[in-house]
Amino acid sequence: MSFPAQLAADAVAIQARLDAAMAELSGQPVVDAMRYAAQGGKRLRGFLVLESARMLGVASPTAISAAAAVEALHAYSLVHDDMPCMDDDALRRGLPTVHVKWDEATAVLAGDALQTLAFELLTDPALGNGETRIGLVAGLAKASGAEGMVLGQALDIAAETAAQPLTLDEITALQAGKTGALIRFSAEAGAIIAGADPAPLRAYATALGLAFQIWDDVLDVTGDPALTGKAVGKDAAAGKATFVSLLGLDAARSRAKSLVEQAETALSPYGAAAENLIECARFVIARES
Amino acid sequence: MSFPAQLAADAVAIQARLDAAMAELSGQPVVDAMRYAAQGGKRLRGFLVLESARMLGVASPTAISAAAAVEALHAYSLVHDDMPCMDDDALRRGLPTVHVKWDEATAVLAGDALQTLAFELLTDPALGNGETRIGLVAGLAKASGAEGMVLGQALDIAAETAAQPLTLDEITALQAGKTGALIRFSAEAGAIIAGADPAPLRAYATALGLAFQIWDDVLDVTGDPALTGKAVGKDAAAGKATFVSLLGLDAARSRAKSLVEQAETALSPYGAAAENLIECARFVIARES
Repeated sequence: MSFPAQLAADAVAIQARLDAAMAELSGQPVVDAMRYAAQGGKRLRGFLVLESARMLGVASPTAISAAAAVEALHAYSLVHDDMPCMDDDALRRGLPTVHVKWDEATAVLAGDALQTLAFELLTDPALGNGETRIGLVAGLAKASGAEGMVLGQALDIAAETAAQPLTLDEITALQAGKTGALIRFSAEAGAIIAGADPAPLRAYATALGLAFQIWDDVLDVTGDPALTGKAVGKDAAAGKATFVSLLGLDAARSRAKSLVEQAETALSPYGAAAENLIECARFVIARES
Repeated sequence: MSFPAQLAADAVAIQARLDAAMAELSGQPVVDAMRYAAQGGKRLRGFLVLESARMLGVASPTAISAAAAVEALHAYSLVHDDMPCMDDDALRRGLPTVHVKWDEATAVLAGDALQTLAFELLTDPALGNGETRIGLVAGLAKASGAEGMVLGQALDIAAETAAQPLTLDEITALQAGKTGALIRFSAEAGAIIAGADPAPLRAYATALGLAFQIWDDVLDVTGDPALTGKAVGKDAAAGKATFVSLLGLDAARSRAKSLVEQAETALSPYGAAAENLIECARFVIARES
């Protein structure tokens, strides 16, 4: 299956797994908000779980709960990140954010419960034996906690009030946490489930994650709000350092391109089996949203 | 060791485990806030993990990471619950709450990372094989997510704007989630680690958790703010239904006493080995803070 078709098919399967995980929950507003926040998006992280597993010979139904877990984790981070005390965004994926549609308390709790759901999904016996599943729990915790995603978010908030804009090294470290860690774990998860060496997938996803963020900064300048579903030019207006403000638009684009080449090279041991992951890396720097 | 001495010794051991888990983290304000929020308290939940494990023949060093996990989880819930959009509390354990001492963004992120830390602690190989540890992850997730603690918190917030005060059944259901689920899991965790039947400990902790909350409502009316470390009379002033407003002070006390007797009966199969857990239940309705 081609990359775009596979991405679309995986998004459907991931949504179905998330729906099933939340089917038994109460009809409380906080649960409605969880369902709302866990909808939509490209499901790139979940695709990375499923495709890295497929590349290593593991069928999608085996890995689907891990794909749903990284998407639940990602959704939680967006709900909290959009709150007024954080990035203060009213729009996400073209829809009102959770605290706008409900209220801040519901946003706090829905985000909290989506994080919990992510870890609960990793306990699914379909993913493998206890050691495999606890390996996934450890990996997701490391990627998303105070050494990973939350550290990146904290650095991002600190940057907003810093006397000087961040340097290139600082913004690279920030993004390695904020978006990079979960993208890296997503690709590694396939290797954990398959019982394979995670090193090539880690190298691939590290380059991919940075390319992804550089491209997000490019889109913040050049993007069409109708396509990105969020306000553009926001970072520049806030005087925040971005890869584009530090490198310039052309050099940022070319850095992203070179990272995608690195990502491809990392997967060369897998030959043709890596085709969709390589297409995914190319897609990251071709996307308009 | 007597119950008070054991509770104190366990609190020290739990703090040491939490300190060790956070020792490697960065010096970012969010990490300072995590350490701050994870300090103090009676460590009753962590004690329940360690004492239920001991009752079943498991030494404390084996179970300590699970005790630290429930305390990290509890600390996260307090940080978020204290936020202005939730309970809006400025004081916790006699100290300024996280959003007062830092800011709301730091409170969101520190709470988030403490939840992540809780799950990471459960991956500690000392707790047992992969199946045991994944059983702990599943139990903690169920207890703390949208079917457990978060559901209780959501019901609590809904109650604040409800046209009518909650009934006794409704407030019992609310508390079974908000405080009961994590207390129940804490006692069950000892059985999971020991590979023993969790049913008696579940019955014990279900009664204990409700007694605990009834007693909290009693203290909200009769307590000394210098001892409880928080404002008293707050629920009554807010017109919120509590066990005391619904039952009256005397009947609330006597209901708590009867629940403690139920908790004792549930542990009768264990004879003298259950002594400290029984003392713990008695302590819950004797405490002044």
